[in-house]
Amino acid sequence: MAKKYVYFYGFGKENTEGDQTMKAILGGKGANLAEMANADLPVPAGFTVSTEACAYYASHDGKYPDGMLSQLKTQLKKLETKMGKKLGDPKNPLLVSVRSGAAVSMPGMMDTVLNLGLNDKSVLGFIESTGNARTGWDCYRRFIDMFGSVVMGPTTSLEHEDFEQALVELKKKYGAKNDTDLTAEQLKELCDIYKKVYKKKVKKPFPQDPFEQLLASVNAVFGSWNGERAIKYRQINKVTGLLGTAVNVCSMVYGNMGDESGTGVAFTRDGSTGAEAPMGEYLINAQGEDVVAGIRTPKHLDDMPNEKSPIWKKAHKQLHTIMKKLEVHYKYPQDVEFTVEQGTLWMLQTRNAKRTGLAGVRWAVEMATGKDAFTGKTQKKILKPNEALATLTGTDLEQLLFPIFDVAAEKKAEVLAKGLPAGPGAGVGKIVFEASTAEKILKDNPNEKLILVRHETSPEDVGGMWAAQGILTSTGGMTSHAAVVARGWGKCCIAGASDLAINYKARTISAHGKTLKEGDWISLNGSTGIVYVGQLPNEASPVVSGVVGGKKAAQKHPIYQMYKQISDWTDKYRKIAVRTNADSPNDALAARAFGAQGIGLCRTEHMFFEGERIWAVREFILAENLKAREKALAKLLPLQRSDFEGIFKAMDGYGVTIRLIDPPLHEFLPQDKAGQVEMAKRLGTTLSAVTERVKKLHEMNPMLGHRGCRLSITYPELCVMQTRAVIEAACNVAKTGRKVLPEIMVPLIGTKAEFDYCAQVIRTTADAVIKAKKSKVKYLVGTMIEIPRAALTADAVAETAEFFSFGTNDLTQMTFGFSRDDIGSFLPDYLEKKMLPVDPFLTLDVEGVGQLVEMGVKKGRSSRPDLKCGICGEHGGDPASVKFCCKVGLNYVSCSPYRVPIARLAAAQAELGK
Amino acid sequence: MAKKYVYFYGFGKENTEGDQTMKAILGGKGANLAEMANADLPVPAGFTVSTEACAYYASHDGKYPDGMLSQLKTQLKKLETKMGKKLGDPKNPLLVSVRSGAAVSMPGMMDTVLNLGLNDKSVLGFIESTGNARTGWDCYRRFIDMFGSVVMGPTTSLEHEDFEQALVELKKKYGAKNDTDLTAEQLKELCDIYKKVYKKKVKKPFPQDPFEQLLASVNAVFGSWNGERAIKYRQINKVTGLLGTAVNVCSMVYGNMGDESGTGVAFTRDGSTGAEAPMGEYLINAQGEDVVAGIRTPKHLDDMPNEKSPIWKKAHKQLHTIMKKLEVHYKYPQDVEFTVEQGTLWMLQTRNAKRTGLAGVRWAVEMATGKDAFTGKTQKKILKPNEALATLTGTDLEQLLFPIFDVAAEKKAEVLAKGLPAGPGAGVGKIVFEASTAEKILKDNPNEKLILVRHETSPEDVGGMWAAQGILTSTGGMTSHAAVVARGWGKCCIAGASDLAINYKARTISAHGKTLKEGDWISLNGSTGIVYVGQLPNEASPVVSGVVGGKKAAQKHPIYQMYKQISDWTDKYRKIAVRTNADSPNDALAARAFGAQGIGLCRTEHMFFEGERIWAVREFILAENLKAREKALAKLLPLQRSDFEGIFKAMDGYGVTIRLIDPPLHEFLPQDKAGQVEMAKRLGTTLSAVTERVKKLHEMNPMLGHRGCRLSITYPELCVMQTRAVIEAACNVAKTGRKVLPEIMVPLIGTKAEFDYCAQVIRTTADAVIKAKKSKVKYLVGTMIEIPRAALTADAVAETAEFFSFGTNDLTQMTFGFSRDDIGSFLPDYLEKKMLPVDPFLTLDVEGVGQLVEMGVKKGRSSRPDLKCGICGEHGGDPASVKFCCKVGLNYVSCSPYRVPIARLAAAQAELGK
Repeated sequence: MAKKYVYFYGFGKENTEGDQTMKAILGGKGANLAEMANADLPVPAGFTVSTEACAYYASHDGKYPDGMLSQLKTQLKKLETKMGKKLGDPKNPLLVSVRSGAAVSMPGMMDTVLNLGLNDKSVLGFIESTGNARTGWDCYRRFIDMFGSVVMGPTTSLEHEDFEQALVELKKKYGAKNDTDLTAEQLKELCDIYKKVYKKKVKKPFPQDPFEQLLASVNAVFGSWNGERAIKYRQINKVTGLLGTAVNVCSMVYGNMGDESGTGVAFTRDGSTGAEAPMGEYLINAQGEDVVAGIRTPKHLDDMPNEKSPIWKKAHKQLHTIMKKLEVHYKYPQDVEFTVEQGTLWMLQTRNAKRTGLAGVRWAVEMATGKDAFTGKTQKKILKPNEALATLTGTDLEQLLFPIFDVAAEKKAEVLAKGLPAGPGAGVGKIVFEASTAEKILKDNPNEKLILVRHETSPEDVGGMWAAQGILTSTGGMTSHAAVVARGWGKCCIAGASDLAINYKARTISAHGKTLKEGDWISLNGSTGIVYVGQLPNEASPVVSGVVGGKKAAQKHPIYQMYKQISDWTDKYRKIAVRTNADSPNDALAARAFGAQGIGLCRTEHMFFEGERIWAVREFILAENLKAREKALAKLLPLQRSDFEGIFKAMDGYGVTIRLIDPPLHEFLPQDKAGQVEMAKRLGTTLSAVTERVKKLHEMNPMLGHRGCRLSITYPELCVMQTRAVIEAACNVAKTGRKVLPEIMVPLIGTKAEFDYCAQVIRTTADAVIKAKKSKVKYLVGTMIEIPRAALTADAVAETAEFFSFGTNDLTQMTFGFSRDDIGSFLPDYLEKKMLPVDPFLTLDVEGVGQLVEMGVKKGRSSRPDLKCGICGEHGGDPASVKFCCKVGLNYVSCSPYRVPIARLAAAQAELGK
Repeated sequence: MAKKYVYFYGFGKENTEGDQTMKAILGGKGANLAEMANADLPVPAGFTVSTEACAYYASHDGKYPDGMLSQLKTQLKKLETKMGKKLGDPKNPLLVSVRSGAAVSMPGMMDTVLNLGLNDKSVLGFIESTGNARTGWDCYRRFIDMFGSVVMGPTTSLEHEDFEQALVELKKKYGAKNDTDLTAEQLKELCDIYKKVYKKKVKKPFPQDPFEQLLASVNAVFGSWNGERAIKYRQINKVTGLLGTAVNVCSMVYGNMGDESGTGVAFTRDGSTGAEAPMGEYLINAQGEDVVAGIRTPKHLDDMPNEKSPIWKKAHKQLHTIMKKLEVHYKYPQDVEFTVEQGTLWMLQTRNAKRTGLAGVRWAVEMATGKDAFTGKTQKKILKPNEALATLTGTDLEQLLFPIFDVAAEKKAEVLAKGLPAGPGAGVGKIVFEASTAEKILKDNPNEKLILVRHETSPEDVGGMWAAQGILTSTGGMTSHAAVVARGWGKCCIAGASDLAINYKARTISAHGKTLKEGDWISLNGSTGIVYVGQLPNEASPVVSGVVGGKKAAQKHPIYQMYKQISDWTDKYRKIAVRTNADSPNDALAARAFGAQGIGLCRTEHMFFEGERIWAVREFILAENLKAREKALAKLLPLQRSDFEGIFKAMDGYGVTIRLIDPPLHEFLPQDKAGQVEMAKRLGTTLSAVTERVKKLHEMNPMLGHRGCRLSITYPELCVMQTRAVIEAACNVAKTGRKVLPEIMVPLIGTKAEFDYCAQVIRTTADAVIKAKKSKVKYLVGTMIEIPRAALTADAVAETAEFFSFGTNDLTQMTFGFSRDDIGSFLPDYLEKKMLPVDPFLTLDVEGVGQLVEMGVKKGRSSRPDLKCGICGEHGGDPASVKFCCKVGLNYVSCSPYRVPIARLAAAQAELGK
């Protein structure tokens, strides 16, 4: 028996031969049509010629495989029988569309051919059944055009332009301005002209035999698989392993066959709130294009039962039943297209609906608990908790955490500019240009709301950034300083609003002709990147109020309840631990409330900028000998110690990974003249001493310069001071009965020797402190793996290092050779040209950087089987990256406090195989 | 039978129990002493207690292994018998030294104890045999001090300081200013005082039993193996796998026993010229320290036969015979120490001699051909050609290639400053401060000799650098721009002469109080880094004149002849091909003359700086749209094409790898105001347009920024122009009957997608040119592997790339996270603290970067088995790195023209297993 090449679908499960698992053979479109039929949806029936037939055709010089032709005829017969229509029938013709459809959607393939089956005779039957001659002739002339240019075009010189020219001439002849001005008679004349155009170029008359039309179309689809455009597309986009394209032959249905016909679109839920309230629009006696074109105003779905003809009440009910069924079948809210043809409802398409995070969470929780968190209405559970989690994304959860604008108010607000949505949420405040000014204002008036507006921010600005309601920058990307810091705090931020001109001197910002001055109100939507003029109303997230603020009222809010439910579920499934990146007791407490199980990255240098400390740091940098440096460090010691005490208290019982100083020293010095003058004055030295030091610290490529452990090796006394601060704090907090687990981390090592040098300084110092304090505190010494060489030699490093933390930000920079500060000039182009699938600083590059991470874990554990491995940096909060971390066996991921719930979700999904 | 723990050496091969292969057991010193005895040298005999005994002692709480003690006694007895002296003998005592000696030399171990065996009685016998009471008592008091502080010190509170204080008091008592002012009687008194000091701290009298002295010393050596300092040293320096230290007990000989005793040092050859003329110095009635201390002026070896006592004539002859023998035994010129004790010659040490490159080459060629290239004198061949090659280093050969100063004149010259020997050779010329000035001067007067003096050089300076005789910079290291470019040309360069103050404004340079002005003569020795005041006489290398200049007279010079012989030998053994990095026809021709088999790296952007081209490049950079950019590129096309034509002609029959533009665009723009004003004027635009573009191109980390293939992806038209220039040139040259093999190389790729994008632009362009020109030129498209990610994903890249060239300069930067421009601030510290064994930019880091290279080769060949792999960049000319390249199966190494002979030597040595 010949192999099966043609698969029927439609008229219920019993008549359908494929399903959604058969994408490789039926293509994406064919498999989805079959699946809808399996769900007993009224899908316009048809059949799919398989990709295997295409593969045979391509490798056998345009021959069909044995059996395909007879199967095609059999399935066509079945379709005609089921539909009660015949292809080419002069009374009641069956019309079909022919569409390509590979397993992966791609451009460059043959376009759709609609209305196939029309010829000089069947067009009359079509006109009779629609009762509309103009539509009939219009369809026919369009079919001749499409068949001619799309099907015959590639092998002849016939082009759409040839038909277009004839159309223009005819319009001229009749003084018609638009196509729609042509009458039925004139369109009939056009059909004759088109047939002549066809014959002239193709050298054969337009085929009147519908089966000949069909075979020619199938061949054209097959042929387009190896067309130049398709091949190039597959090469560029690395699409490999496909057999070919399938061909879908679908019976056509018409919503423009009178008042008992119509067409529409609908969502199974309210896409904004997730309430069980289907929303949709429809048009009577219209085709799909009419809805899209917006010529007529569609009606709301709820009006449908009130239409004159009783069929609409029935259709409305049927549609609702189908939508309910679809949600159950696809286990996801759906977005459908439908057509009613002479009283019969046909479902043309269904797909997962776009919805807000709130709507997604509400639906998922409702379906898995059987109860709507808002209304309390109960219903049958259709999802298990793991299935509910699988329907959610990190972005959905994230949307629950940030303050939001009043929707109506935002719609009416005046847009000033647009930037990158760098820190989600809603921020409202008065414009302020300097971080220091912001701090001063808030000192006098703590209730003031400010938005810090700068070209870009630097570590010196963190105080003001923290104080402000939101941050707006005109340069920098999603991973600029402002963006990273803001996201870490869960603070609203719009970065790189490049159409915004900031004039520090005039104290104004302007965009698109509008100018605002310092102190004027602006509002930022950090989730969309839009900057509004004025003060929009916003409110805090009940989740944040409930979790971080611990407010009882907020904890009763349905949104909080849903967050709690989701979080509980994630902990049920995930195996990998989730830690946080936190540099202060406040951050640590917030993260712990969000479920963090320790600190994966505490950046000690962030503490260096606070208050008076920067002066001790600068004194250290300016010092000319060891003694002077130690004197400066002695001032820092008690401050750092007290920071660590706060963090250890907050993290009682959990590990705290503290990274030694990392950034190059020049970051701690003022780069501007005024700042340098102030520094000289304050440290009692000359301006030239300061400027010379600044000059000496200047580097061509600071990212690859004198930083990280290289500083601790040049200045071991710095490492000694930091270790003392950590261990003294640990001993002090341990005395209060808390469990303290300090983990000291050496950054930026590339060789085992670097690690060993630092580790020895740390261990010698720490042991002396512990001995002196008669404490029993245990500590670990480990390292960041963020330089390719460290991953390559991880076996040697792990001989002495007790834990690894993959610093994938820097690792990505060095593995790709990308400076994160500079990729703005080419990354957009790279993403557009598909040089990269995604920004590798947002989602870990598994193929390259991931290879080093996996190598680091394997090699490290080859010398130390129980080596604790984690990841810190932006990727720790990215769902796709978290999944990878689970796969390679990391013990934990670490991310900023407000991304902890997202990481927990991703970790659960990774185990669930999503 | 007990295991052997104590090994005898001395009195010829028949009495010696070890050899130089037994370092692990005998330690380095013990093995070398045994080897000298095996060579039948008159070595003062002794025995070595093995490292195995030390290991046992350390792990058994200070017990000796079974049999060791009795072996020690037996060997001591044998030593006494052979020497005809007895330990502690009151008439003719045997005195010994006790020294530690592990397989690897390391500090922190117990120091030497000399004169062991002296006690109150034997000191009198010693005085009797030396006839010098003062020396006898001086030896004794030194021995008490040494034994007390070195042997007993670690376990008691006794310190050298205790003895020193007693000495100071005694000197005060007798009004002696120096130690040497003390008489024999007074020293005898000191011995008594020292014994009291000893007893007070040790609580036991100073041991009079010599065997007790010996065992205590052996124990002290063993104990020092696990002393704190030694352990720390081994940790820091990663010394592992050693058993312990050996203990060498050596009979002492004295050169200060009258007029038939003496001591000296000698070289078996003239270390400067390599002539067979041993050189050395000696002192009669003196000890080794006296020669070193320089209190007496030693005599020349040739005077020895003329001494009064006839024993000296005999000793002189014997020494010469031994030296001849040593060269044969060690197959290398030797540097020896000897002592004559009462007419008997003892060899204390021999080691490979330090010598100049010329001397090394001359010796090697003479020993392998049996003929001295200078004198024509023949002798027996003692080396095979492969052995001769093994004695040479790249530096030896290099020294033959560069101009040299007249030795006598250089000795007398006034030193101005010292910097890094960045480009070897001798450069003499007048000071000039700007590259452009240098070019102008030489245009007017082509015979002028100039030295370009700058803080540092930049690509804009290459014209003037080429024109100058040498380059002197005050900043930058061995891999700074000036250094790399100069070495590439074989031009003399001293970089980073930091004690030199350059004042562009005053037009002066000064150092150490001396100031010179523009136009004054200076002379640079690029091989030593010394800058001289004035015009020293120098001459060109006959090798360069013969090879590059093709001068017949030079080719008859012995130095040329030796170079030729060495080169012929290298080609006999090496398997890997050697290519060159060359950007111009002249470089290509020179390299070919040196034996280059193709071009491994032609940097197209170097051509961009020449003459008028830079203006077209700047026009391109400033252009605001594609059309304007293409217009600028059209001007560059014919210039680039003609460059490539020259190179293809020069390389007829060999492959030429051409790299597309690599550096960031800002490097082509003037960074100073004046240059920007000129640019604006010349390109007919505003200054602000220029400054804005400069500002926009500024990057935080240009090394990781918008450069390499990223430029070709942003501006495909640039890639099109460069491809056209290459392929048009190839077609044109092919028409002249030459064989042209262009290989177009895409730089800085990190993903297959980047390569594929560029490769498609290249192939489309190239095929169109070849078709239009009706040519049959074949070309390859490949890529640099210089980003870690490219190596990690080399299997994917090699699917479409036809060759790989490892750009290990950038690969080292990114694998280590080291910016080559910025490591000056920590690399010296790193090398000193042994964080790195060598500068990884000079010698490839096999452990880390090498791992990526090996991975790249393996993965690449897994998808394309015949993938051609090479290396370009500095490492291609470094012998250790070349060896690695051979090991991992590269097809070729590529280096600058003047390093081609060195790479050929290294390649041969790699095959010979050196």
